[in-house]
Amino acid sequence: MSCCHTDGTEGAFTVDASRITFGRGCLAELGDRASALGITRVALFSDPTIAGLEVFDTAARSLRDAGIDVVAYTDVRVEPTDESFKQAAAFASETAPDGYISVGGGSVIDTAKAANLYATHPADFLDYVNAPVGAGTPVPGPLRPHIACPTTSGTGSEVTGIAIFDLLSMAAKTGIASPALRPTEALVDPDCTDTLPPNVVACSGLDVLSHALESYTARPYLRRPPPPRPTQRPMSQGANPWSDLGCGEALRLLGRYLRRAVDDASDREAREQVMWAATLAGIAFGNAGVHLPHAMAYAVAGQVRDFRPASYPDAEPMVPHGMSVILNAPAAFRRTAHTDPGRHLFAAEQLGADVRGAGPDDAGVVLAEHLIAIMRRVGMPNGLEGVGYTGADSPALADGAWPQQRLLANAPIEIDREVLAGTFDESMRYW
Amino acid sequence: MSCCHTDGTEGAFTVDASRITFGRGCLAELGDRASALGITRVALFSDPTIAGLEVFDTAARSLRDAGIDVVAYTDVRVEPTDESFKQAAAFASETAPDGYISVGGGSVIDTAKAANLYATHPADFLDYVNAPVGAGTPVPGPLRPHIACPTTSGTGSEVTGIAIFDLLSMAAKTGIASPALRPTEALVDPDCTDTLPPNVVACSGLDVLSHALESYTARPYLRRPPPPRPTQRPMSQGANPWSDLGCGEALRLLGRYLRRAVDDASDREAREQVMWAATLAGIAFGNAGVHLPHAMAYAVAGQVRDFRPASYPDAEPMVPHGMSVILNAPAAFRRTAHTDPGRHLFAAEQLGADVRGAGPDDAGVVLAEHLIAIMRRVGMPNGLEGVGYTGADSPALADGAWPQQRLLANAPIEIDREVLAGTFDESMRYW
Repeated sequence: MSCCHTDGTEGAFTVDASRITFGRGCLAELGDRASALGITRVALFSDPTIAGLEVFDTAARSLRDAGIDVVAYTDVRVEPTDESFKQAAAFASETAPDGYISVGGGSVIDTAKAANLYATHPADFLDYVNAPVGAGTPVPGPLRPHIACPTTSGTGSEVTGIAIFDLLSMAAKTGIASPALRPTEALVDPDCTDTLPPNVVACSGLDVLSHALESYTARPYLRRPPPPRPTQRPMSQGANPWSDLGCGEALRLLGRYLRRAVDDASDREAREQVMWAATLAGIAFGNAGVHLPHAMAYAVAGQVRDFRPASYPDAEPMVPHGMSVILNAPAAFRRTAHTDPGRHLFAAEQLGADVRGAGPDDAGVVLAEHLIAIMRRVGMPNGLEGVGYTGADSPALADGAWPQQRLLANAPIEIDREVLAGTFDESMRYW
Repeated sequence: MSCCHTDGTEGAFTVDASRITFGRGCLAELGDRASALGITRVALFSDPTIAGLEVFDTAARSLRDAGIDVVAYTDVRVEPTDESFKQAAAFASETAPDGYISVGGGSVIDTAKAANLYATHPADFLDYVNAPVGAGTPVPGPLRPHIACPTTSGTGSEVTGIAIFDLLSMAAKTGIASPALRPTEALVDPDCTDTLPPNVVACSGLDVLSHALESYTARPYLRRPPPPRPTQRPMSQGANPWSDLGCGEALRLLGRYLRRAVDDASDREAREQVMWAATLAGIAFGNAGVHLPHAMAYAVAGQVRDFRPASYPDAEPMVPHGMSVILNAPAAFRRTAHTDPGRHLFAAEQLGADVRGAGPDDAGVVLAEHLIAIMRRVGMPNGLEGVGYTGADSPALADGAWPQQRLLANAPIEIDREVLAGTFDESMRYW
């Protein structure tokens, strides 16, 4: 087998992508597309907020107009848990649909993935969950068709094989990762983002930004050990020429359009371009993987005390996913920049930073300072202190991030608990 | 249905891509990948030249090592015909494999697509052939799994749903186009190109270059009428943000590496980058479509008299596909540049042209002159005269290209027979 280099590292990369339809108004294609996939009875997943919006009616009407029987599940929890995943799976098992539709943000799409998985291939809940938290058992076969319709320009979940949730017993986020989870099709309609409040556009857009930055700076695929078999190559395979291309364009678009999209809901060009950047970054990180800022974010969100952000459901304290990611990013990239200063400077330049005269030693500072400027401009809190943490929390946050070995192994630097705690310390306050 | 703009044009685009594995040595992954697709008995397609090379043995050994029964068909004709497609289909029907592997250039991959199609969904040959030559009947369902392993950095057939052949009764090239024809996976191993002679690298590389240029300058998807149903959106849907990204990168790589790859077979970096450019351009044109230079090329190849290129089988006269395309390109882009001078100048710049000081009116000349310089540099003939045509042939060539309505409709300008004949006239001699 010559699938790897003679020094024992990987020699190839594998990329997958779903069918993607992108454009204003394309949500009305849903019924025709579901019919073409052979779906006759669909489980339509959404959350209570989305279920009250026109976008949900558009989706349901399109399905019914195509003669498809629709059973709706609109109880998806924002920031899902193992319990909410199990409830959704129980619904799917009882109603036995032959296809799945998700209309919502990452929480909705991830919940539909999980419901589809456990209804199609029943198992103990932890069987499919990523090791070391779960058993990491491979999904035994294909799932039912799933068309994912994102309503935020954020997670990219519509094009990835990843579903994230809070494991309540451990107070930590983890997930399920398998190519089988990737939705069959993504239907990306920028009209869905026209009514999003500024803070939601900012948080989800900064999640996109970090998807692109992390995938672009991830450990290059050629430095990863090869898998036991070629078909077991992980989705988090590291930076590769395919993901690099999508990341570069996503960063360029975000540098140009994110502030406009946050400032002005009526700026249709900006919101459309940020939605396209989210799709590109989703494709990229689905084939490259994220690393340190996302691994840290799981702890930041999981150990929240009483922070309540604007424009999110305020029943419980929460740090929105994108916010929990970007608060770690400047500190993380200061630590990774020395591994490939050119990539870090290129990323800063794509985002609009002035990199004239910057040398390799400046890369971390230039990128971090530009990220901080963007965060301030779109109203992010001033580091982790801004969401209620102090330096005394760093060891516990490091413990919370440590189980994210799939992500930590994808970083371009070696990471132990000390590095994690130090990076949390450096993320506490930026200005 | 709000799938289109109120002015009756298209409002969305749809992109599809196969699973792609890229890297030196990855051909050895073939057996594991075929097994993972459930294949137990495979039809292995190749041509007589490739069948004598190590690459063919590598593929066959990998399949056998995985316990897969291999039946080989190594009689694929370079520049296939309806007769050679039918022979391959008859082989497939008789041997009844549960999967297909193609190891070769576009001719081999296209022949495997056709064999898979007619063995899986038998029909009269012309039923699936593009209208107006054939009936253009939609393929009724999925085909058997097919892993395509390209051995030239050229056609991109490994990632498209298109199969091209000569219809002997009309002395014209035509094809079959359906998403169902797209190979399940592409296994792209740059090692396969190490032994290619310079003229083959030049011809196939210039095919890639024109895939990228034509897709990038094709009529934008927003200006195309919408399809009767969203799921009938054509693969030749016009330039879109997804194809633009791949085209831009492919042009940049070709501008930097094509000459090196032609000049020096031992320049592994250059050959690898040209192979990656071919993959990107294949993905792009599979989702955007080519136009005028390719439509013209079908006539140039189909009406060949006695031209015999270096390094190709010399049993019969032929104009290699990439050569037949690029000979029309400078004249074609001079005619299309006014529709979007910025795109034509950007393309020239990506290819390495100096565009400083060039204005919109210069775009056609700047791009054409740079293409001519590249053609001279890699040894192409001086226009269509160089392969045996004269201006007196232009009307017949125009008649030969006229049936390519699928491609001609994808051009950014209106095209009639007069425009075609004029562009052929202008392609006769460049220096």
